[in-house]
Amino acid sequence: MRPVRVVVYGAGTMGLLATRMLKEKGAQIVGAIARSDAKKGVDLGTLAGVDKLGVLVDTDAERVLGSVRPDVVMLATQSFIPEIYDQLAMCIRSGANVLTLAEETFFPWNTSPTLTAQLDRLARIHGVTVTGGGHQDSFWIHQVGALMGASHRIDSVKGFATWNADDYGPDVIATKHVGETLEAFEHAVGQGDAPPTYGRNVLGALAQASSLTPVGWEATVRPVIVDQDRTSRSLGRTLSAGTVIGYSDVDTMRTAEGPVFTFEMAGYVYGAGESDTNEWNVYGEPDLYLGNGVVPSYTTTCTQWVNRVPDVINARPGVVTIDEMPPLSYRALPLHRYVDGGKLS
Amino acid sequence: MRPVRVVVYGAGTMGLLATRMLKEKGAQIVGAIARSDAKKGVDLGTLAGVDKLGVLVDTDAERVLGSVRPDVVMLATQSFIPEIYDQLAMCIRSGANVLTLAEETFFPWNTSPTLTAQLDRLARIHGVTVTGGGHQDSFWIHQVGALMGASHRIDSVKGFATWNADDYGPDVIATKHVGETLEAFEHAVGQGDAPPTYGRNVLGALAQASSLTPVGWEATVRPVIVDQDRTSRSLGRTLSAGTVIGYSDVDTMRTAEGPVFTFEMAGYVYGAGESDTNEWNVYGEPDLYLGNGVVPSYTTTCTQWVNRVPDVINARPGVVTIDEMPPLSYRALPLHRYVDGGKLS
Repeated sequence: MRPVRVVVYGAGTMGLLATRMLKEKGAQIVGAIARSDAKKGVDLGTLAGVDKLGVLVDTDAERVLGSVRPDVVMLATQSFIPEIYDQLAMCIRSGANVLTLAEETFFPWNTSPTLTAQLDRLARIHGVTVTGGGHQDSFWIHQVGALMGASHRIDSVKGFATWNADDYGPDVIATKHVGETLEAFEHAVGQGDAPPTYGRNVLGALAQASSLTPVGWEATVRPVIVDQDRTSRSLGRTLSAGTVIGYSDVDTMRTAEGPVFTFEMAGYVYGAGESDTNEWNVYGEPDLYLGNGVVPSYTTTCTQWVNRVPDVINARPGVVTIDEMPPLSYRALPLHRYVDGGKLS
Repeated sequence: MRPVRVVVYGAGTMGLLATRMLKEKGAQIVGAIARSDAKKGVDLGTLAGVDKLGVLVDTDAERVLGSVRPDVVMLATQSFIPEIYDQLAMCIRSGANVLTLAEETFFPWNTSPTLTAQLDRLARIHGVTVTGGGHQDSFWIHQVGALMGASHRIDSVKGFATWNADDYGPDVIATKHVGETLEAFEHAVGQGDAPPTYGRNVLGALAQASSLTPVGWEATVRPVIVDQDRTSRSLGRTLSAGTVIGYSDVDTMRTAEGPVFTFEMAGYVYGAGESDTNEWNVYGEPDLYLGNGVVPSYTTTCTQWVNRVPDVINARPGVVTIDEMPPLSYRALPLHRYVDGGKLS
């Protein structure tokens, strides 16, 4: 059986981290696409800080996809389906499976139903699979679903996760309203000045994984206020006590069967010693809890993305979300060893 | 579609708790088997503390199984395959699927390979499934497997779980060497006076779930010593500082692919405020952690057993272990709603 042939689409931090991990897991990287000219013509291995791969970054996606025939495109460009629709459609038409990190793609049926249905139809026609992976996979679906499976009766499920907005540069910091007064924050958010939440995609996938029927959604935003001075590396300045240092997206999903789900995702500028967290409580008979201590979510976003490569090749054609796939599994061997017979012939 | 027809085999605490949960999940209990005459002729509902079910406990298993044609027998009698082999064979020959709580049945291939192969052949001939469920399902396989799926490279996996030996009566207390001096304990354990561990069954299932190949096993026993006086309810006396209050089974599994697994299960007499615990660390790139806080394992042993009923009916014939089944899932609706079409016609 031959190695899995992969194109890395998006040469940002995740694409480059995946490059190393894919190599270490025996994948053959056959193409690299960046959107900016700055990286054009540079060897992907050099960008990723590993040995040269003999794969030069190109900015013409159509040319790359048309010439190298990958099994899977690893797409890490933007976050939302409308933004990446054309990229996805191009990959599908080239006959490649697509595994994206775009957060909305994790379960796009409830937030972009029309575009998702179009992608699903296109993928079925071309016999390929489109899937969104990432940190949500293990930490927000498969671990949580397994916890829920130990319930006799669920009244509610409450998840809480944090991430350090200071790790993602000034652009992200700006969208998180860091450094604003509470009044300015509340005014801006009242004007709708916050991107859509990803919690709805996570909860939609959890509902589908548990055969539950969503019947109502709410989303609210809750500011995080610093109680003593804290320095933001991204902003290069100190945020004084009482300032907004980020906010939580709080999504609520009601289901026809009864259980109410809440997921709060808090992105803010961390203080000393803080780390990413992930905690879930299931209330009912009995009450259940799961926590992941110090969560290295920067790394696990990439590890889970890479570990899903065989599943995306194995999956039926269409938009196939993670909840429809086998449990995420550790890959000790080269990725192609986990691909069903004949799929790589 | 009709309800799932169930026989409860073993009218102990777990069989009776399951009786209530099965009723609440829309199963039809059609028979009850106890091994002692004390419960013979009593309504199972009365024993379970719920409304009468019109099902009288019988001690003649063959008669019950031959007359009521259950879809599934819920078997909670003893712990080891050699002890329950005849019970399993009888259920299989009657044409019923069997879902047991016997700890060894969770993954019996590595500890009772010959008897398991015989049961597997018998089950295939009769077109039924034999599966072991319980607390291991979510907490020691599916949550842990999902955590491992977020790894790029695993060096080792370490699990630690505790349970209160004082909750299980004087018989269990006696097997845990509670109240002995360290010298007496070490002498007894040196003579082989400890039951086989269940950790090996758990680790074997984890290996199979992760496509890893076990190549070496070790089991050790570690005493738990009380550091100040503690009262045992089961024994009705105080254990003074320095006394053995139970022990840990520590199982180690080496794999051909590299990762080394250790699972320590500590059963001892709890002090005030202690509760069951479950913690797993995965060491590698990156390091990962999972903890379940206060674990209500008495209840979750039963909830998981009941939630697996549809999966056992859906599964192929033979001995099918939990790692080969879909992720454990919450069942909001009556159990028969999760059974594949035609299986209950």
